[in-house]
Amino acid sequence: MEYYSKYINQLIEEFAKLPGVGAKSAQRLAFHILNLPEEQVSHFADTVVKAKANVRYCKKCFTLTDDELCPICRSDRRNQKVIMVVENTRDLAAYEKTGKFDGVYHVLHGAISPTLGIGPGDIRLKELMERLRDDVDEVIISTNSSVEGEATALYISKLIKPTGIKVSRIASGVPVGGDLEYIDEVTLLRALEGRTDM
Amino acid sequence: MEYYSKYINQLIEEFAKLPGVGAKSAQRLAFHILNLPEEQVSHFADTVVKAKANVRYCKKCFTLTDDELCPICRSDRRNQKVIMVVENTRDLAAYEKTGKFDGVYHVLHGAISPTLGIGPGDIRLKELMERLRDDVDEVIISTNSSVEGEATALYISKLIKPTGIKVSRIASGVPVGGDLEYIDEVTLLRALEGRTDM
Repeated sequence: MEYYSKYINQLIEEFAKLPGVGAKSAQRLAFHILNLPEEQVSHFADTVVKAKANVRYCKKCFTLTDDELCPICRSDRRNQKVIMVVENTRDLAAYEKTGKFDGVYHVLHGAISPTLGIGPGDIRLKELMERLRDDVDEVIISTNSSVEGEATALYISKLIKPTGIKVSRIASGVPVGGDLEYIDEVTLLRALEGRTDM
Repeated sequence: MEYYSKYINQLIEEFAKLPGVGAKSAQRLAFHILNLPEEQVSHFADTVVKAKANVRYCKKCFTLTDDELCPICRSDRRNQKVIMVVENTRDLAAYEKTGKFDGVYHVLHGAISPTLGIGPGDIRLKELMERLRDDVDEVIISTNSSVEGEATALYISKLIKPTGIKVSRIASGVPVGGDLEYIDEVTLLRALEGRTDM
């Protein structure tokens, strides 16, 4: 793009590398940055570098944190004997927003996917099994209800069963407020199978 | 958000300040950055800072560039006597992509908008009038076909008329490939008014 200067093009290219940012949005973001005061721009850049430098994985649950142990693994108000297994830190955040789960987490950083070449050794499964040597009451598997998430859930439950620790899977069904006529058949069947007495 | 570390929260906040980036996307962008290798992250931050430090306005047409004059104003393959007036650098880029315009530009950096409190003195209008002292054949007004864009076009044409320089306005009508039934009435009327003989 000859009509933009070298620096603008480089900036647009950098933004276009981000997930969910197309060519048009990258351009928009680049011009937004160029129109900001210099100190705001360097603050933005600093925040990016500092976050990357200071954030690491929690030694226990592998969520992203800036200490050896994350605030949840350190907390004595959390039940350290109930472990919820999630695919990533965003899923952990989603549960934390409910404010109703008082156990701890284990972040797999992915799900088993033969098509993407992601095997059990590529996610934090070994580390989960190591945690089960401690006193654990229950493992709640909260992987996504996608093909990969279900496969991962099944794989983990089979690994844990022999230890005698209780393994559960979050319910799958019609979302609250969901209109039945717009919900896919697989979800409807799941909702039917998972029905509970009233 | 207690469940994220301080640095992650700061990073999410920075991304959420960008235009068109909501809370969910900001989170997604932040985690994407945190999962990149350190050198890619610092390269991203460097590009942002460098672009801001090196990009300025072209002395002549006020597009964003990294030199005193932009490549278009410097080019002897461009007709410096035909000036297209646009609202911003992205509009200039849109015309450059067509590859069919061989004149030069003048970037207003906005449009007159009484509701937003933007008057003729807040956009690069004075600088446009100064350029007209040189030998200019035509000024093509390519502001948006919004209320503000139209008002700006009218204002500029009235300013230029007394100089005797030709002023034109880009055509407004049905977009190519547009389905008539989905096009608003104002556009349809414009298309009708602007009809040409076949």
